[in-house]
Amino acid sequence: MAKRIGFSTISLQSRPEIAAFAAVGGTLESEGLLKGKLAHVFSDAALGQDSWEKAEALLQQSAAESALSRAGIEPKDVDLHFAGDLLGQSNASSFGSRGLAIPFVGLYGACSTMALTLAVAAMSIESGAAQTALAGTSSHFCSAEKQFRHPLEYGGQRPPTAQWTATAAGACLLREDAGRTVSSPPVITQIQFGRVTDLGVLDADNMGAAMAPAAADTIGSFLRDTQSIPGDYDLILTGDLGSVGSDLLRQLLLREWGVDLSDRHGDCGVMLYDREQDNEVNAGASGCGCSAAVLCADILPRIAAGELGRVLFVATGALLSSVSPLQGESIPSIAHAVEIISQ
Amino acid sequence: MAKRIGFSTISLQSRPEIAAFAAVGGTLESEGLLKGKLAHVFSDAALGQDSWEKAEALLQQSAAESALSRAGIEPKDVDLHFAGDLLGQSNASSFGSRGLAIPFVGLYGACSTMALTLAVAAMSIESGAAQTALAGTSSHFCSAEKQFRHPLEYGGQRPPTAQWTATAAGACLLREDAGRTVSSPPVITQIQFGRVTDLGVLDADNMGAAMAPAAADTIGSFLRDTQSIPGDYDLILTGDLGSVGSDLLRQLLLREWGVDLSDRHGDCGVMLYDREQDNEVNAGASGCGCSAAVLCADILPRIAAGELGRVLFVATGALLSSVSPLQGESIPSIAHAVEIISQ
Repeated sequence: MAKRIGFSTISLQSRPEIAAFAAVGGTLESEGLLKGKLAHVFSDAALGQDSWEKAEALLQQSAAESALSRAGIEPKDVDLHFAGDLLGQSNASSFGSRGLAIPFVGLYGACSTMALTLAVAAMSIESGAAQTALAGTSSHFCSAEKQFRHPLEYGGQRPPTAQWTATAAGACLLREDAGRTVSSPPVITQIQFGRVTDLGVLDADNMGAAMAPAAADTIGSFLRDTQSIPGDYDLILTGDLGSVGSDLLRQLLLREWGVDLSDRHGDCGVMLYDREQDNEVNAGASGCGCSAAVLCADILPRIAAGELGRVLFVATGALLSSVSPLQGESIPSIAHAVEIISQ
Repeated sequence: MAKRIGFSTISLQSRPEIAAFAAVGGTLESEGLLKGKLAHVFSDAALGQDSWEKAEALLQQSAAESALSRAGIEPKDVDLHFAGDLLGQSNASSFGSRGLAIPFVGLYGACSTMALTLAVAAMSIESGAAQTALAGTSSHFCSAEKQFRHPLEYGGQRPPTAQWTATAAGACLLREDAGRTVSSPPVITQIQFGRVTDLGVLDADNMGAAMAPAAADTIGSFLRDTQSIPGDYDLILTGDLGSVGSDLLRQLLLREWGVDLSDRHGDCGVMLYDREQDNEVNAGASGCGCSAAVLCADILPRIAAGELGRVLFVATGALLSSVSPLQGESIPSIAHAVEIISQ
């Protein structure tokens, strides 16, 4: 049985193992931090499909199949599949999981989805509902721009605060124990589901500012609940705040929680692309696929290798819809936390 | 710890109680089966808001607050909140939960969402991650028509197979034990997460046909896993297949699983509206709010009263997106099952 610690942190007694993990992505995503680390690189942005939505569904399916293949198991051996994405009606997940025939739980947490699916999958193992669970997500630059901003053909300029939605997907296979594919698989020890926060940011081209308060709330309350300090972690990894949101997060944590993230903080949105790669990247990367790919292709291998001992993964999501900014609504945000350690 | 039974059924040892439940709806929804049973009836379809999406968010918030009020507790006393809806980016849930400040898990299962949120909430209690969990969903005729079909102003005719998306929301408060608001609260004993099925139905005006195979797969495998027959249940309640989908479900179960649902089957889509009420209802009701309202306002009170001893609630969802039918895609579907008993 899990134990609740403090206000909302959950300590898992079963300590689920991340037995296998994989990320796939597009060309741009393969040229920065993740060079040589992706299971597949798709040079054709459409992945041979006739719509961006179908391309993203295939991206997500590819990551899931890569993780299963690395674990050496078939879809029929997986008890539960947790997935979500940014598209309306979680299009990429519903269609991406159609061929797998694994009992399916769709989740929605915008760009926080990799942490959300990992946390719920870990909870399913803790409960005994699953011995083996697959968790994953995806995003695609073209399907996201089309849905949230402008038609690609419009060729609109993007402001400096804008982030570039990653064309990428990640998947993790969680197991109760044993059956170790990675020699020392990373272990999930604690999780926290975030609260919806909204400080009134209205600009859909400044997601970092909208999400920073959610990240601060989750990191602050997690450290308070667990009586920890940033120095207890090798890395506190936020999802996709980008450069603007990362600065805001560090300010908010210092001012409101008295927490100095200092040199322990990394942000997937800042890390994914090499800033020299593409001027259009602006404030960094975003999208569910951003934190999924950085986690699955860079961070988890480093935890498995013992290079990182204790990581707090806090993916952030901006819960706007494709119509809510047009209706004058501010952008509610959320951040979910997953503590992952090496063993 | 939960036990896995057969292929994919999960037996819960903690037997979470549904300590309080409430549904709210529009005028049409208050005139049929649920006459006098809704916690609030909103005579203004816009609920005083300036968009259908904001109206639906308020609908969902109202159901959640009604359930909490009946349980006599505050949002701060709830450990986890599980919700989802039909709108792009789960708009009604994200915005509807913004004011509650409960750690939030967004789920997507289209019209299967009431069963999905109940099942995941039950799993969270089983795991120890929560002692108290809120599960809910909503739908709104106007936000759904606008998103999936035609602008309301277009006034298009609806074919006989079409169903009417319910303007309604439901919420359940689950508790580990004790703190009983209802004198004998219904108990969740077993759950099953469905698989995504797709038999190639292309018609977005015939959701019943798209969802019937998913319902058959979940009911058939649940009965097989638990070695049960329909006669073991007082009611096998499907979500919103409507009249067309209900006929197909009974045929599929008989032909492929040798199961005769006969007089044990009820469908929320058929039950919600009095067929004399409105000619436009056609094949019945649909939407996340349909099964949520029927469950929370009619079925759970009857279970609490001991009138129904054992109910298998199987809400069904059509996982199309607002763009997928326009891209020639068929409609993947899913059905999740929750066994609820009186005590």
